Amino acid sequence: MKLLENLIERIVQRTNINLREQSFDVGPYIRDLIEPEKFLKFYAFYGVTQHHPLNLEFVGSSLSGSYFMGNCRTHRAVLYKTDVRGDELKRRGDHLRAGGFDIVLESDEQIRISNSFLVKNLVHNFSHDPESAEEFFIRDSVSLHHANIHGAPTAGAFLGPLATVDLTTVYDAIIGSFAYVNAGEVDHQRVEPGTVWIEQRDVFRFLYRYPPEVLQKYVRYEAGQPPQGILPEFMDAHEEEFQRLFDVVDLEFDGNVPEDASLDRYAVVKPRTTIGRNVLISQRAYLQNSTLGDGANAQENCFLIDAQLAGRNVMAHGAKVIGARLGEGVFVGFNSFLRGSVEAPLRIGDGSIVLPHTIVDLAERVEIPDHHLVWGYITRPGDLETHCMALEALSAVDGEVVRGNMHFNGSGAAFVEGFRARVEHILEANGAFFDGHNQRGHAQEHRNISFNTIRPYLEGERQGIFPTMVITP
Amino acid sequence: MKLLENLIERIVQRTNINLREQSFDVGPYIRDLIEPEKFLKFYAFYGVTQHHPLNLEFVGSSLSGSYFMGNCRTHRAVLYKTDVRGDELKRRGDHLRAGGFDIVLESDEQIRISNSFLVKNLVHNFSHDPESAEEFFIRDSVSLHHANIHGAPTAGAFLGPLATVDLTTVYDAIIGSFAYVNAGEVDHQRVEPGTVWIEQRDVFRFLYRYPPEVLQKYVRYEAGQPPQGILPEFMDAHEEEFQRLFDVVDLEFDGNVPEDASLDRYAVVKPRTTIGRNVLISQRAYLQNSTLGDGANAQENCFLIDAQLAGRNVMAHGAKVIGARLGEGVFVGFNSFLRGSVEAPLRIGDGSIVLPHTIVDLAERVEIPDHHLVWGYITRPGDLETHCMALEALSAVDGEVVRGNMHFNGSGAAFVEGFRARVEHILEANGAFFDGHNQRGHAQEHRNISFNTIRPYLEGERQGIFPTMVITP
Repeated sequence: MKLLENLIERIVQRTNINLREQSFDVGPYIRDLIEPEKFLKFYAFYGVTQHHPLNLEFVGSSLSGSYFMGNCRTHRAVLYKTDVRGDELKRRGDHLRAGGFDIVLESDEQIRISNSFLVKNLVHNFSHDPESAEEFFIRDSVSLHHANIHGAPTAGAFLGPLATVDLTTVYDAIIGSFAYVNAGEVDHQRVEPGTVWIEQRDVFRFLYRYPPEVLQKYVRYEAGQPPQGILPEFMDAHEEEFQRLFDVVDLEFDGNVPEDASLDRYAVVKPRTTIGRNVLISQRAYLQNSTLGDGANAQENCFLIDAQLAGRNVMAHGAKVIGARLGEGVFVGFNSFLRGSVEAPLRIGDGSIVLPHTIVDLAERVEIPDHHLVWGYITRPGDLETHCMALEALSAVDGEVVRGNMHFNGSGAAFVEGFRARVEHILEANGAFFDGHNQRGHAQEHRNISFNTIRPYLEGERQGIFPTMVITP
Repeated sequence: MKLLENLIERIVQRTNINLREQSFDVGPYIRDLIEPEKFLKFYAFYGVTQHHPLNLEFVGSSLSGSYFMGNCRTHRAVLYKTDVRGDELKRRGDHLRAGGFDIVLESDEQIRISNSFLVKNLVHNFSHDPESAEEFFIRDSVSLHHANIHGAPTAGAFLGPLATVDLTTVYDAIIGSFAYVNAGEVDHQRVEPGTVWIEQRDVFRFLYRYPPEVLQKYVRYEAGQPPQGILPEFMDAHEEEFQRLFDVVDLEFDGNVPEDASLDRYAVVKPRTTIGRNVLISQRAYLQNSTLGDGANAQENCFLIDAQLAGRNVMAHGAKVIGARLGEGVFVGFNSFLRGSVEAPLRIGDGSIVLPHTIVDLAERVEIPDHHLVWGYITRPGDLETHCMALEALSAVDGEVVRGNMHFNGSGAAFVEGFRARVEHILEANGAFFDGHNQRGHAQEHRNISFNTIRPYLEGERQGIFPTMVITP
C-alpha cells in the first residue's frame, strides 16, 4: 500500500498548508481512519445513461465504494464510499447569471476532485460560483463522514462529520461537525459545530446554533474515529442492509414502480412501500413502510421509515424521516432527522419547510401547521415557540427576529421566496412535474442507468489504488 | 440499437470484401444470431493485476459477456461472451526470433480487434507472426461459437463454430467448423469442416479429416443459428451453472486452493474436486468430482468431470475430459472431447499427447498407453489402430505414414519434438514448475485479479454499445 500511504500523506500536507493560519492538522483525522483492507473490499462504480454527458477520468486515486455520474475527474484523491452525482452540470453554451454578470460556458462543466480525502460524502450539483463556472472543484480538502459538498467549489477545507456546505464556496476554512453553511463564500474562517448559517449578503442572515449538550448526544467525534451519537449510530444500524445490494450483480424490485418514476438499484426498499408517479429514489436511500406521493423524492442517504409523504416532497440528501406524515410540498433539508413514533407521531402541514440540519426527535406528538418554517431542535410541542414560525409571518419581517438560539436579520420575504423558488427548482430538476411529454427530469432519466464497477489493485505497491481510467461516450 | 445495427452491417461488409474471391457472405451468419436483449444483459469485464501490463481501449464496440486481460484494443467490434487473455504478450525490448530473423520489439505488444464479430471465442497469447510482432490483430473477421484464435493475427476470415487457428496467421480465408489449423500462414483458402491440419513448411505435415457423419453428430450448424450436435449441446447443458458466477459480486470457494495455485473466480467448481500445487484453473473452466495433480492446468472453457489428472497436465482451451484417468504430463489439445464412463472408462498413459480436436467418446473401455499420440475419432479399442501411434514410432518416421483418415508426411521427430517443447513451454508459462521462488507463472500471478465490470448503454441510439474507455496503470 506504499502509493496509497504516500497519497494520504500528500493530502495531509496539501490541506495543512491551506489551513496553516488556523494551525490545524488534518493528519490525525484521516491517517488511520479507514482500515487498510476496507480500501480493497468495496467496488467503486459509475453510471452511464444516454441523458448525461459522460467524461470520467480517474488518476492515482483510491475510490472504494464510491459512485460517479456525469463529468468528473479525480486526481490523487481518496474518495471512500462517496457519492459524486454530476447529473446537473452545466453544458457548453449554458449561461450562469450572477451578480449582474451573464457568463457563457466555454466548455461542459466538470467536477474535479484532487488531493482530497472524502469519506461517505455527497458531492452534487453544479457550481454556483461565478468565479468558477466550468469547474466544480474540490481540492486540498478533507471532508468526513456524511458531509455534503453541494453546489460550489471547496479548496483547503476541513469538513467535520455531517457538515454541509451548500451553494457556498469554501476556501481555507474549517466547518465543524453538523454545521450547515449556505453563505455564498466562506474563507479563512472556522464555523463552529452545530451552526446553521444561511446568509445572502446585504439581504438576510439566519443563524442558529445547537446547544453543546444536544450536539454531544446526536453528533460527536474524536480525531481518527468514526463519528458517534444518535445520527451516525442510526445510519450504522442500517449499514448491513445496504451491503446486500452490493453483493449481487442484478437486483429486481418486486413492487410497482410507475413508468415515469425511478427507483435506484442501490436503494433499500423494505415491505409496504408505495411509490407514486414522477418519484425519484436515489442511491443509498432506505425506504420502509412508507408512501411517496406523486412527485416526491428521496435523495441520496435518505431514510423514510413509517413515513407518509403526500406528494411533491423534497427529501434532501441525508434527510431522515421516521414515524411522520408530511403534507403536500413539504421540504426536508440536508441531514435533518425527524423521528416520531406511534406514541409520539409527527405531522407536518402542506408547504412547510424543515431547514437543513433540523432535529425533531419526539417524546410527545407534535404538529407543524401548514406553511411554517422549522429549525433547530424540537422534542415536544412547547419547542415550537422558539423553533417554528409561519412563513407568512417571516415574510413580513424586515429587520431582526430572535427566537431562542435563532437570530434572523434582514428581509424575511427574500429568505422565504428564495427557499420556495429553490424547492420548486429541485422538484423540476427531479422530474416531479413531468406530464408524459414535457418537464422530464431525474425521475425519468435515471430509469435505465448502466452501472459499471471498478476495483483497485489488490496487491503490490499499487494496492488500494485504482487503475487510470478515461471514460467518454 | 441503431449504432449496433450499423456496426454489424459494417462488419458484414468489411469481412465480405475480404472474402469476395470466395463469394462468401457472412451476413446470414451473424445478422440475427444474437437476440437484441442479450447484448444488454451480460456485463463485460476486465482483469487488473500488478503482474500484467494494462492498456485497454474500447471504442464503439459491443462487448457483452466478454473478458479482457492485458493490452487490448477493440475498435468497432462485436465481442459476445468472448475471452481475450493477453497475459503473455511480448514487452518492449523483447526478441522474437523467426526464420533466421531476430526482431526486437519497439513497443509492448497489443491485441487489436477491429471491425470483427466474435462469439464465445477464446483469443490468447502473443503473435507468433514475425510480420506483426507488436500487434496481435483481428480485423474484418467473423468467428463463431467456441472458436479459438490463438497465437497469430487474423484478417478477413470466417471461422465456423469450434474452429481453431493456432499459431497461424489467417488472411482472407474460411475455416470450417471444428477445423484445427496450425500451419504458419493460411491465405485465400477454404479449410473444410473437421480438418485437423498441422504443418511446418518443408518439415512435416499432419492431416486428418473427420468423416461427415461424425461431424454431423458432434458439430453441425446452419447460418444464423447456434451450433448443434453433441459438443455444443454438452456445453449448453452446463451454461446455467456458469450464470450463478455472474449473479454475485464476490464468490468464495470453500475448498482448499494451495497458495501457489490459482482458481479463477469465474470457474465452476462442484463437489469432490481437489486442486494440487501450482495448478492454474482459468475462467469458465468447469470442474466436478475431479483431481488436478500438481502443476496441472484447466484452461478457459475446459470441462473436467469425474477426471483424475496425475499432474503437469495441460488441458488446452476448450478441452473436455469426462470419466477419464490421465497420467503424468498428458496433454489434451484445444476443443478435444474425451468422454468415458464407469462402464467404459478412459485411461491415458504418462506423457501421451491428445491432438487438438480429438473426439474419444467411449462405448467400451479404452487405454492409451504411455507416450502415445492420439487423434481423430475413437469409440472403442479397435479404433486405436488407425488413431493412435507411439511417439517413439512417429519420431522414427521420415516420410509418409497413412492411418485411416490420417496422412503424415515429413519428419516425425520434428513433429514430436515440436509438440513436446510446446507442452513444456505451456507448463512453464502456467507456473507448473514454480519452486516457491523461481519459475513463477500464471498459476501464481492470477491469484489476485481485480475484476471490473462494464455494461453498454441500455437505451437510445447507442443501446448495446459500450462507452469509450481507456484504461492504463
